[in-house]
Amino acid sequence: MKDLFAKAETLTEALPYIKRTWGKTVVIKYGGSAMTDPLLRESVASDIVLMKLVGINPVIVHGGGPAINEYMNKLSMPIEFHEGLRITDDEAMEVVKMVLVGKVNKQLVTAINAHGRLAVGIAGDDANLISARQVSEKLGRVGEVTSIDTTVITKLVEDGFVPVIATVGVGEDGGSYNINADNVAGEIAAALGAEKLIFLTDVDGLYRDFADKSSLISSLSLAQAEEMMMSESLSRGMIPKIGACAKALRGGVGRAHLLNGILPHALLLEVYTDAGVGTMLTQSGEAAAPGLSSAFEGGA
Amino acid sequence: MKDLFAKAETLTEALPYIKRTWGKTVVIKYGGSAMTDPLLRESVASDIVLMKLVGINPVIVHGGGPAINEYMNKLSMPIEFHEGLRITDDEAMEVVKMVLVGKVNKQLVTAINAHGRLAVGIAGDDANLISARQVSEKLGRVGEVTSIDTTVITKLVEDGFVPVIATVGVGEDGGSYNINADNVAGEIAAALGAEKLIFLTDVDGLYRDFADKSSLISSLSLAQAEEMMMSESLSRGMIPKIGACAKALRGGVGRAHLLNGILPHALLLEVYTDAGVGTMLTQSGEAAAPGLSSAFEGGA
Amino acid sequence: MKDLFAKAETLTEALPYIKRTWGKTVVIKYGGSAMTDPLLRESVASDIVLMKLVGINPVIVHGGGPAINEYMNKLSMPIEFHEGLRITDDEAMEVVKMVLVGKVNKQLVTAINAHGRLAVGIAGDDANLISARQVSEKLGRVGEVTSIDTTVITKLVEDGFVPVIATVGVGEDGGSYNINADNVAGEIAAALGAEKLIFLTDVDGLYRDFADKSSLISSLSLAQAEEMMMSESLSRGMIPKIGACAKALRGGVGRAHLLNGILPHALLLEVYTDAGVGTMLTQSGEAAAPGLSSAFEGGA
Amino acid sequence: MKDLFAKAETLTEALPYIKRTWGKTVVIKYGGSAMTDPLLRESVASDIVLMKLVGINPVIVHGGGPAINEYMNKLSMPIEFHEGLRITDDEAMEVVKMVLVGKVNKQLVTAINAHGRLAVGIAGDDANLISARQVSEKLGRVGEVTSIDTTVITKLVEDGFVPVIATVGVGEDGGSYNINADNVAGEIAAALGAEKLIFLTDVDGLYRDFADKSSLISSLSLAQAEEMMMSESLSRGMIPKIGACAKALRGGVGRAHLLNGILPHALLLEVYTDAGVGTMLTQSGEAAAPGLSSAFEGGA
Amino acid sequence: MKDLFAKAETLTEALPYIKRTWGKTVVIKYGGSAMTDPLLRESVASDIVLMKLVGINPVIVHGGGPAINEYMNKLSMPIEFHEGLRITDDEAMEVVKMVLVGKVNKQLVTAINAHGRLAVGIAGDDANLISARQVSEKLGRVGEVTSIDTTVITKLVEDGFVPVIATVGVGEDGGSYNINADNVAGEIAAALGAEKLIFLTDVDGLYRDFADKSSLISSLSLAQAEEMMMSESLSRGMIPKIGACAKALRGGVGRAHLLNGILPHALLLEVYTDAGVGTMLTQSGEAAAPGLSSAFEGGA
Amino acid sequence: MKDLFAKAETLTEALPYIKRTWGKTVVIKYGGSAMTDPLLRESVASDIVLMKLVGINPVIVHGGGPAINEYMNKLSMPIEFHEGLRITDDEAMEVVKMVLVGKVNKQLVTAINAHGRLAVGIAGDDANLISARQVSEKLGRVGEVTSIDTTVITKLVEDGFVPVIATVGVGEDGGSYNINADNVAGEIAAALGAEKLIFLTDVDGLYRDFADKSSLISSLSLAQAEEMMMSESLSRGMIPKIGACAKALRGGVGRAHLLNGILPHALLLEVYTDAGVGTMLTQSGEAAAPGLSSAFEGGA
Repeated sequence: MKDLFAKAETLTEALPYIKRTWGKTVVIKYGGSAMTDPLLRESVASDIVLMKLVGINPVIVHGGGPAINEYMNKLSMPIEFHEGLRITDDEAMEVVKMVLVGKVNKQLVTAINAHGRLAVGIAGDDANLISARQVSEKLGRVGEVTSIDTTVITKLVEDGFVPVIATVGVGEDGGSYNINADNVAGEIAAALGAEKLIFLTDVDGLYRDFADKSSLISSLSLAQAEEMMMSESLSRGMIPKIGACAKALRGGVGRAHLLNGILPHALLLEVYTDAGVGTMLTQSGEAAAPGLSSAFEGGA
Repeated sequence: MKDLFAKAETLTEALPYIKRTWGKTVVIKYGGSAMTDPLLRESVASDIVLMKLVGINPVIVHGGGPAINEYMNKLSMPIEFHEGLRITDDEAMEVVKMVLVGKVNKQLVTAINAHGRLAVGIAGDDANLISARQVSEKLGRVGEVTSIDTTVITKLVEDGFVPVIATVGVGEDGGSYNINADNVAGEIAAALGAEKLIFLTDVDGLYRDFADKSSLISSLSLAQAEEMMMSESLSRGMIPKIGACAKALRGGVGRAHLLNGILPHALLLEVYTDAGVGTMLTQSGEAAAPGLSSAFEGGA
Repeated sequence: MKDLFAKAETLTEALPYIKRTWGKTVVIKYGGSAMTDPLLRESVASDIVLMKLVGINPVIVHGGGPAINEYMNKLSMPIEFHEGLRITDDEAMEVVKMVLVGKVNKQLVTAINAHGRLAVGIAGDDANLISARQVSEKLGRVGEVTSIDTTVITKLVEDGFVPVIATVGVGEDGGSYNINADNVAGEIAAALGAEKLIFLTDVDGLYRDFADKSSLISSLSLAQAEEMMMSESLSRGMIPKIGACAKALRGGVGRAHLLNGILPHALLLEVYTDAGVGTMLTQSGEAAAPGLSSAFEGGA
Repeated sequence: MKDLFAKAETLTEALPYIKRTWGKTVVIKYGGSAMTDPLLRESVASDIVLMKLVGINPVIVHGGGPAINEYMNKLSMPIEFHEGLRITDDEAMEVVKMVLVGKVNKQLVTAINAHGRLAVGIAGDDANLISARQVSEKLGRVGEVTSIDTTVITKLVEDGFVPVIATVGVGEDGGSYNINADNVAGEIAAALGAEKLIFLTDVDGLYRDFADKSSLISSLSLAQAEEMMMSESLSRGMIPKIGACAKALRGGVGRAHLLNGILPHALLLEVYTDAGVGTMLTQSGEAAAPGLSSAFEGGA
Repeated sequence: MKDLFAKAETLTEALPYIKRTWGKTVVIKYGGSAMTDPLLRESVASDIVLMKLVGINPVIVHGGGPAINEYMNKLSMPIEFHEGLRITDDEAMEVVKMVLVGKVNKQLVTAINAHGRLAVGIAGDDANLISARQVSEKLGRVGEVTSIDTTVITKLVEDGFVPVIATVGVGEDGGSYNINADNVAGEIAAALGAEKLIFLTDVDGLYRDFADKSSLISSLSLAQAEEMMMSESLSRGMIPKIGACAKALRGGVGRAHLLNGILPHALLLEVYTDAGVGTMLTQSGEAAAPGLSSAFEGGA
Repeated sequence: MKDLFAKAETLTEALPYIKRTWGKTVVIKYGGSAMTDPLLRESVASDIVLMKLVGINPVIVHGGGPAINEYMNKLSMPIEFHEGLRITDDEAMEVVKMVLVGKVNKQLVTAINAHGRLAVGIAGDDANLISARQVSEKLGRVGEVTSIDTTVITKLVEDGFVPVIATVGVGEDGGSYNINADNVAGEIAAALGAEKLIFLTDVDGLYRDFADKSSLISSLSLAQAEEMMMSESLSRGMIPKIGACAKALRGGVGRAHLLNGILPHALLLEVYTDAGVGTMLTQSGEAAAPGLSSAFEGGA
């Protein structure tokens, strides 16, 4: 019985967070172990369904590095990176796209839809969602975003669905481009004017001193983050994430979060509790206290 | 940190219940200590807000016996009952109505609206919601429901509000009638085709043997409940509640519940956990297993 | 037959007024004898129903002085005023609220709804309609408006209803405040951008010389009215009304009217004939001639 | 002042009639002197505008005999009738159509639109409203209705307009047919499921004995009217009107009325007073007492 | 079979034009032989239907000179012109209106509606579409546009119809005015913010040298056209057309076209092929290349 | 110029077909050379865009045999068929899905979207579109349709998009099934109540005698087709197509067509000309002449 009260208490504690996030758009960059481990994937899927039912409009963005490598190995294709970017010839691009769109995307879609008719997976080609151009000839079909057309996302959300987006872009020539998924997440969050951008990664967040696990930073300003980036105190994987956070925050997104997706239900903990799981970036470094005016207003 | 995981787990456990109740109408007969104790009232209010945000359409119905007695005493009016019904002359009726509509109703409305612009309190006069007629001349302005016009409830729900209903009815003469709130709750649940009807009372539910607290019945059929009513093994206060359950279940409501409102967050526990807090009545006595087809379907 | 033609003529004479007011919002401060006399109340109710059916959106605001005094006397509570404001302790506030919301409000609601499912009575607590703060500690729970949230009014009007508003406000502490109904009417008219604000009182309007009944002023400017207020040539009861008119006119309301509610169908006469029943206040003191552009335009 | 009260009283007396007709469709066959006399035309126009603003959806149908004769005379065309039907060759048909559509129709449209952007004049060709076929070769382009497509009427009403319909039909060959306007009015009333069909004529209604002006029949059943038709006690002009009433009543229209359009504001008197101006036909011969259930219900 | 491929090719060639014009409003001034020759009328009607089905919103405007003359002759009325404008007394005005509204308008309406329930014919009186004033006393009821109320056009288009407009205006006195149809077309195109204004005439367009048929101008700027007008190198009939083009282009219309309506399917050729049939006027004299941004965007 | 007239003529000839198909749903099974040849793919894409702009709602369904074989070969996976069905183990299923969803689907999506923001590619997992079960254990993950949830198709069409569907189904276990695309096309056409089902193949249609190219059947009844199937006179590839046609026609689809996709613009020729390109199946073997009642009706 005691246990029951504790349960009720937990639901009740979530109420202020539910009020604050009700009707808001949250872009989630899905990646890391949460993408490769089936149990974590199911946990993330149930978190996303819960968020949707509790009034948030989640929009999911993903890449798919490890699964791509696996297929390129199977096909005996060379795997080469240049400054962190995968050199992608036409043949490789086809494999990248098939893996992202036909495998990784649908894995998450299916996990969500075990709960009901909710997720629809799309890629940058669909309804001309992601337009892209070549980054450099040397890298082949590695691209960068030139524009985001949010129409299909907005329509799917209005129709009651959760869009799950594979980060392949379309060039003016109609050809596909492989784009860093962190970047796309930042661009989409900015284009949607999202409330939050959340990165599910395999680390707990930013550290003042990466070697010292007790130095996890719970919140910092964009300026501080960019300073850390300059000073090369960030791990390589964090750099595009911080860049995407900058893009999003400058584009009007309220907060960006780096969470460890290995933590079960990290999304719920971030969204519905006070607990600081991970690192939060805001323009000022401080969470603006959501005043009365930002509280839930029914009947609107 | 352990505590955090437990919290996330609790939210996650609520997911199937949230899916099952999403978009459904639940009529809550608010009464007993939950109505008189300010702390319990706030707890009920926060439960109702949570239910609303999590996709349920709660409709609240209440009476207000103790507060009426208090004012009748203050006004030195005689308090007389006949077979459990308050003998109500015209002067008493005015007091009953003022207390129900102007005090008890607004107490709950204010408690809910501390969370946002959600509750709207109405009475049977508003938009001709509850039509009534006299029960017997001897009882004066004690009435019974002749018809329910659900228009204003439906409109308020569509507008995003939580209707809170004081159970005063209007006669053909335009005069008010004092109607048993349990009855009104049953009639409104039936008229709305609600999913559930929940009674918040001061007892844990029905007992096989009222003296034996271990004999609480967790679920029974309407037939069984009516048999108990015949055999006079029910307490007096339970009789109108069982009558209202019968009305509601025969009118198409799926389940009726008797909960102890003293239990903090009893509503949440009933709606979002498996735990049997209280007694459930159904047509058959068994909860129909909600099959796949009744699960939440987004995008509809 | 002659009589018939006269009737048709009267209906026809109303046509230009109907065109001019079609689709407009008119806030009516209901008070005085029209509130206490059952026959006048029915007459006002039928006027309001007629206005609604003929294309106006009436919004009713009321206080309830005499009925409050009556109950405070019955309860042997002291009745004390300070500069025209009722000193209101917590106990008195509860009575004030019960009488306004549970008696006076529903009397008008019931009178209107004898004509059909039209009126819905609400108070300042409902959907956080009227936010208030204490005027001075000495006066206890006497309040003044801090903000009006018109959402519930607008929704009820869109749903086809006539909102009837009891002027109780809610403080930040969740406690109730007793607010001058004239003030609230002015604030609501301004917040809604109403076309007109009409006060139903027990005098014929403003007099140049109160002793001289032939000196009734049929129209004057806000500046003139405020000058009269300064020169103390106004009766005490008129002061909050003029203040409310000022609030409304400065907030964009086109015209404010003071009518004698003892005159049967004073509302209809004001709205649908040329006859000057009462005093009209406008910014300039002259009724802007409604040009062609303000005439009814169907099909919009 | 007395006069003022009388005015208010008249408006108030109209209230139950306004409630009863609110939102209903009334088809008005416009004809007789009301069509040829400019002053009567303006009076009818203002009645129609009033009905529209007061919640009725008027749909106007008209022919135009005298104006046609006038132009045929001017053009030195032969005017010949066979059993009351104008023998209409192709040349005559062109003149009939020009006069109905380009003169008579627009006269009423302009008279209504002096009150605002309300009337839209259409003919049977527009949106294929009236399909027709030849009655007999001998009569040339005299036609009868084969079907009514109410789409354009319904759309114009939804858009806030008053449709004014010239009774020219289109044959399968695309050619025009001259159709009796009374017939078309009956067909359109039936096709729309109108509440009422009103004929504006130059007589006061049906007489038991046409010579005896005191024998005006205020109401009768369809069977009685048809019996009178058989017994040849009806004037020739009444026969198509009774036929159209029969068509309409059998098609579900509630009441049909024959009014004298010379009576100023006959429409208002019929619709908004008890006075029996003219003759009413119903299926049973008695006006079904509009019970409570048929009263105006706001908020629907 | 070869023929089949050619057909498919033609449809396919139309695709970019269909994309460019999809959802756009095109005002067509219908006149010349296309109005008097039944076969050309049917060809124009089928072109209009095709345009409608293929996503364009055509709005048709017409006058009717020859048919008016014909009836004035039949009626032995004098036909007099002053500087190209028909001197129109009240009697003549009545004939003008009957012919335009009751004959010419319905001829096109019927031709279009042979394809389905599409066209609705209206005149300037309907819903106060065209307000006008006298040009000079000498000319009698010759008028010029004072304002256009596009409400009824917009509503009809939204309802799925093709409006066909006879160019009779209404004065403040309620009387009709005969207005040059070219002018009205220009005014309506400007008021609607149309994409294109097309004049169907009996010449191929503007010539640099009218005597030299090889000097047809395929496109020119408004300034160039106005210069030609000054230099009196334009035929008299072209002057009001160029004036209307100027009105429309200055009012925001993108392009104005002069086409020879004798050419079968001139409208289709203009809208759905590259071929320069006729003369195009734009602000700059060059067709702005419709960039990517103006291309069809589905899903909007 | 002659050429121009011919073009206009062709567009005009298409008009009756455009009227007949306006607003109708057409399911297109995309396959054969049209899928593998880039030029044909672009031709099909432009046909689909044209159909969409001209009022049809095309829904595309595709498989992808050759591209699957190509990747299975690259991955050195065994390719085995049993009675025409590909034996598909879990590893093969992953490849099948990646190729269909990540390659073939997006190729057509991109080709369509070169014309604008129109196509959205989805698979059976998205919004639980295609539910499936295993056909036989021996065949592994070869599935058959158990149910179609058309929600996401209907929503995308309402949103203005063209859905392009890869035929992968989801089993109750969440695993994917490889389903014959012809079957899925038949099931989806039936579930949508489509007007037409069109198969793009590599043969011209059904032959009475396959060896005799002159024996192409232009139309036949379902019964005749099923008889041919029994008599084994059909090629193997035709059998699932005929089965899918039967499913669709029995489910209410009006006509099914087999077209040779190698023919450029075969879709346009089928839909917008009389020419019999291919074989048509109907319930009766004769195309029901679309009467007047089925013609395009605007304004609906």
